[in-house]
Amino acid sequence: MLEVLKKAVCKANLDLVAHGLVLFTWGNVSAIHRETGYVVIKPSGVSYDKIKPEDMVVVDLDGHVIEGDLRPSSDTPTHLELYKACPAIGGVVHTHSTYATSFAQAGVPITAYGTTHADYFHGDIPCTRRLTRQEVEGEYEKNTGLVMTETLGKRDPMEIPAMLVASHGPFAWGKDADEAVYHAVVLEEIARMALLTESIRPEARSADAYLLDKHYQRKHGKNAYYGQK
Amino acid sequence: MLEVLKKAVCKANLDLVAHGLVLFTWGNVSAIHRETGYVVIKPSGVSYDKIKPEDMVVVDLDGHVIEGDLRPSSDTPTHLELYKACPAIGGVVHTHSTYATSFAQAGVPITAYGTTHADYFHGDIPCTRRLTRQEVEGEYEKNTGLVMTETLGKRDPMEIPAMLVASHGPFAWGKDADEAVYHAVVLEEIARMALLTESIRPEARSADAYLLDKHYQRKHGKNAYYGQK
Amino acid sequence: MLEVLKKAVCKANLDLVAHGLVLFTWGNVSAIHRETGYVVIKPSGVSYDKIKPEDMVVVDLDGHVIEGDLRPSSDTPTHLELYKACPAIGGVVHTHSTYATSFAQAGVPITAYGTTHADYFHGDIPCTRRLTRQEVEGEYEKNTGLVMTETLGKRDPMEIPAMLVASHGPFAWGKDADEAVYHAVVLEEIARMALLTESIRPEARSADAYLLDKHYQRKHGKNAYYGQK
Amino acid sequence: MLEVLKKAVCKANLDLVAHGLVLFTWGNVSAIHRETGYVVIKPSGVSYDKIKPEDMVVVDLDGHVIEGDLRPSSDTPTHLELYKACPAIGGVVHTHSTYATSFAQAGVPITAYGTTHADYFHGDIPCTRRLTRQEVEGEYEKNTGLVMTETLGKRDPMEIPAMLVASHGPFAWGKDADEAVYHAVVLEEIARMALLTESIRPEARSADAYLLDKHYQRKHGKNAYYGQK
Repeated sequence: MLEVLKKAVCKANLDLVAHGLVLFTWGNVSAIHRETGYVVIKPSGVSYDKIKPEDMVVVDLDGHVIEGDLRPSSDTPTHLELYKACPAIGGVVHTHSTYATSFAQAGVPITAYGTTHADYFHGDIPCTRRLTRQEVEGEYEKNTGLVMTETLGKRDPMEIPAMLVASHGPFAWGKDADEAVYHAVVLEEIARMALLTESIRPEARSADAYLLDKHYQRKHGKNAYYGQK
Repeated sequence: MLEVLKKAVCKANLDLVAHGLVLFTWGNVSAIHRETGYVVIKPSGVSYDKIKPEDMVVVDLDGHVIEGDLRPSSDTPTHLELYKACPAIGGVVHTHSTYATSFAQAGVPITAYGTTHADYFHGDIPCTRRLTRQEVEGEYEKNTGLVMTETLGKRDPMEIPAMLVASHGPFAWGKDADEAVYHAVVLEEIARMALLTESIRPEARSADAYLLDKHYQRKHGKNAYYGQK
Repeated sequence: MLEVLKKAVCKANLDLVAHGLVLFTWGNVSAIHRETGYVVIKPSGVSYDKIKPEDMVVVDLDGHVIEGDLRPSSDTPTHLELYKACPAIGGVVHTHSTYATSFAQAGVPITAYGTTHADYFHGDIPCTRRLTRQEVEGEYEKNTGLVMTETLGKRDPMEIPAMLVASHGPFAWGKDADEAVYHAVVLEEIARMALLTESIRPEARSADAYLLDKHYQRKHGKNAYYGQK
Repeated sequence: MLEVLKKAVCKANLDLVAHGLVLFTWGNVSAIHRETGYVVIKPSGVSYDKIKPEDMVVVDLDGHVIEGDLRPSSDTPTHLELYKACPAIGGVVHTHSTYATSFAQAGVPITAYGTTHADYFHGDIPCTRRLTRQEVEGEYEKNTGLVMTETLGKRDPMEIPAMLVASHGPFAWGKDADEAVYHAVVLEEIARMALLTESIRPEARSADAYLLDKHYQRKHGKNAYYGQK
């Protein structure tokens, strides 16, 4: 079942490797089939040079394995919380990419210093609070998802399609697995630029709100004029 | 029409990728045919692995499309202002290359710390002021070009063939598309070195003016003796 | 003799190169055959593009060459002290990888800032004290091993399978040569992230102990649920 | 004439590219034939992807071209001063490699923080003073060589086979062109590590003199025991 989605999720996982975002098995991509509520996700701890579409695991939104011989990624419950809270999300990516993870470890949001950021993210990339002992010792991966939806609050998840989990690393999402990977790649590059910007000028400040709006809207607004559509 | 120039502009765009200056579709190169006043430029938001010479768009200096099925780069009006203000410019490049963009985001010029810089740029690389709300909400891309020519002032654009646009990123130029790309590559490397120089010694100061002059002139002055010509 | 182990050690040495951890001849991997107490190690100063399994040198735990035409790595006595003090260690790696060596040169332990670290190391990566003049001018390489076991103290070496030697560089180990290389690669990446984390926020602090425990145990504890086993 | 040396110098120039030390035409390698006093050097401003052994230029120690259709590197007089002052030098390399150039731009010597440094350089890598206006406006390239020999003073050039020229970049040397390239590669890596060491701990201090001596002597002293000789 869901053969097309399995291929797309498998390819998206391999794209993470091609973009240099993962070392060994550190990362996972999933996508949801909204009609059935089934989620296709990478198996846990399997090497990227061996994964094939048929290895992808199908789970329902409660985390029950519907199809697949392998265990799903241990981060599956985190992905599921994002799908449950945000109906517009079609694909989710988790990586330990170097710069975004470093911001997560520092517990610092990524400031919108320029147009590269604004072309994809409408505002700073938030960082969650640290999880409590209870949250970590309980249903840890599910609680990681809940602290993310708490941090998101009433913001539109499609306007800021990424978040940092404190002391852990980044998650990114999009309308499908491909767009989620695209956002994870952009996130890593703007994290790197933000760090360098602060290194050049420690008191650097955000770009002006009207510039950030302009760039976001020229690509994503209803009068968008970037690209060929 | 302008088949030779289209090939040159297409190749120059691909050279940006080969030099590691662009991620996805972030960047564009144009060149002008001074006899007709026509500008050849990359189409907007098209992936580099698909572009061919015949996809290049021809526009006049008012931005009207003269030839081409695709929309020109959304940054076209910025390129046009540079061509209009500076008759010696034959090619223009815009990228979001990591280090140069970080200086632009910090709003900090690139100091001429050494001979690597002086071999190509006769003085610091300036950074524009931030655009006003009016400039951004009006003809934004055209105004980006105007703030660059304002920053250039009476300087010879061929002596400092690059500039940073605050909160945005770098532009570079040259006598043709190839030279513009060459300058964009050098710009990124000297930006990186400038950041590292300041990291090693926060109070680092510019090389002496007589050394900067010497290096610039031995390559570009009327008694130049570098190279084989 | 020990043909299988020689192949494994030779391949592990080449994996260091593939992972970008060594320049020229800087690095060495060994493995022990516990039944005989024989250690197989890379020859000293031989270029990686030439080494073959039959070049590996076999020594006993006193450092006597048992088999091999080439001199063993000059760091052999350091490896031997680790094998003698820690019966669980099956393979040892020494590199001069950029970020881990920089922490060693600074004499600073690598703080456990996040889950990437905790997935492999149960606590900060320690850095030894500097060796005394007597230790350096005496049996230097052996004393390097002794200062490492002194620094390890009563900790389980398999819970923190790496250490920095002050003013020198990193050592990593594991149950065999492959796992030792794996840990050396992870060490380099978490060293890089730790440096970036401190650059983003100089007063950054360790992840919470309960989060570090959670991640370490979900991969290595008796109720581990990461991966496919 | 000197066909063997031309091949060696051409290959050494290409090795600079293979090691990532040069961008475009930024760098040059030479070697001397001590019997005749002739120096073989790369031609000026020629692209690396085109150079062949027969393009190498032969000059005498006064800088007169003895053989070759192309102009020698504009840095030739600097190389010649090193050969004249130091009879043990057989090959010289000049690059604008990123980290070493950044130290040169900052005017800061590279501190011997660890054994990686000490394995090749017996002490800190010095940085020259800035050249005076008179030195720059006179025989600039020759004076660059003279300020290097002034900085060297009575030190043995083979014990610290590299130097930074303030506001410019690094030179490295060795007993032949190959060893000079080797030292240029090591220099770049230890410059990078030194910068990172200072970033981790701004008050970091040099390794102990007895450790630096030990490492230098175990490779280069009369009782050296590193490697296979």
